[in-house]
Amino acid sequence: MTKIFSHQDIEALDNHYRKNFINSLPGLKPVNLIGTTDKYKQTNLAIFASVHHIGANPPLMGFIMRPVSVKRHTWQNIKQTESFTINSVTQRMYKQAHQTAARYPREVSEFEATGLDSWYSESGKAPYVADSPVKIGLELEETLDIKANDTKLIIGRVIEVLVDEKLLTQDGTLNLSKADAVTVAGLDSYHSNRFLEKMPYAKPDR
Amino acid sequence: MTKIFSHQDIEALDNHYRKNFINSLPGLKPVNLIGTTDKYKQTNLAIFASVHHIGANPPLMGFIMRPVSVKRHTWQNIKQTESFTINSVTQRMYKQAHQTAARYPREVSEFEATGLDSWYSESGKAPYVADSPVKIGLELEETLDIKANDTKLIIGRVIEVLVDEKLLTQDGTLNLSKADAVTVAGLDSYHSNRFLEKMPYAKPDR
Repeated sequence: MTKIFSHQDIEALDNHYRKNFINSLPGLKPVNLIGTTDKYKQTNLAIFASVHHIGANPPLMGFIMRPVSVKRHTWQNIKQTESFTINSVTQRMYKQAHQTAARYPREVSEFEATGLDSWYSESGKAPYVADSPVKIGLELEETLDIKANDTKLIIGRVIEVLVDEKLLTQDGTLNLSKADAVTVAGLDSYHSNRFLEKMPYAKPDR
Repeated sequence: MTKIFSHQDIEALDNHYRKNFINSLPGLKPVNLIGTTDKYKQTNLAIFASVHHIGANPPLMGFIMRPVSVKRHTWQNIKQTESFTINSVTQRMYKQAHQTAARYPREVSEFEATGLDSWYSESGKAPYVADSPVKIGLELEETLDIKANDTKLIIGRVIEVLVDEKLLTQDGTLNLSKADAVTVAGLDSYHSNRFLEKMPYAKPDR
């Protein structure tokens, strides 16, 4: 049986229910940790489920930043340094990754609070998560204000990628099941994954 | 061992390799089908791996539209009708969903070409995928031009949701493992999923 939620039904939902429900609608979302520092080298680490591909040439990735009416350390730091990292989350570390969502005061680094180790590359200004098999260094490229709800799309240009060699395949696609990458439904329901099939390039006559 | 791709390495990558590689960086992405019609009721269906949550109140979802230098039927239709649907892709239908990426001429509907049945609700103008356990009806809310690569963020306001009842849980989070929802690595590598754990709300003292 199908349950229909009309526009009015959705408006009438309890806030907590609606948040979980609407956050589930896109399907299973990738889970990433965004690493930053402020100008005094105080580090910050935050979990995001809205990281998405913007383009391959130039290499661009984006994520959604919620309204900045309360202090968003990630955004403050990116504005100061124009630099951030995106780090994949695996089965081994999703509990720690989830814990970065707690509202720690600014002087507490989520790296220390959650026990995830930071790591710096030679070129990068922002901290990576040492254990992440896919580490991406980015420079702030563009920010777009979303009028509808006062959020922002933050776009970074990929300037460095560090990948566990065993994930590399011949055509460039990363083997993310070997990475034990997790996904999330809604805000808190974590999933593991299993490779099904690589499909051929789609053509009308096939 | 970790392989490092510097800015120069990434620029020097073969186009095909870079496309697969950069598309893999966000992690496992949700797979959705976007359904539209033009003003003459000619239907279109297209696969997207960039659908993401924008906000819960008002309920908003977004996706990235590639440059419109070639004809993008989905975008043309959304401009004409200001209406579209987002439909979840399951293990049973991911092959057909992938096939919607083939460049069919405008007069061919991907519903017919791939054998996915369309279905209309009483209120909706755009076609749903009958078999999708999560069907979302949206109205065009906002479009943002991304200068960095001439793509667009298309934002829709959720006006209707049709969900298979067995996916509903008490707090609003959808049970997407029961839905057999798939994810994709890069452009073509499909994955199934398995529920791991629902985490509690993160607080600093836990």
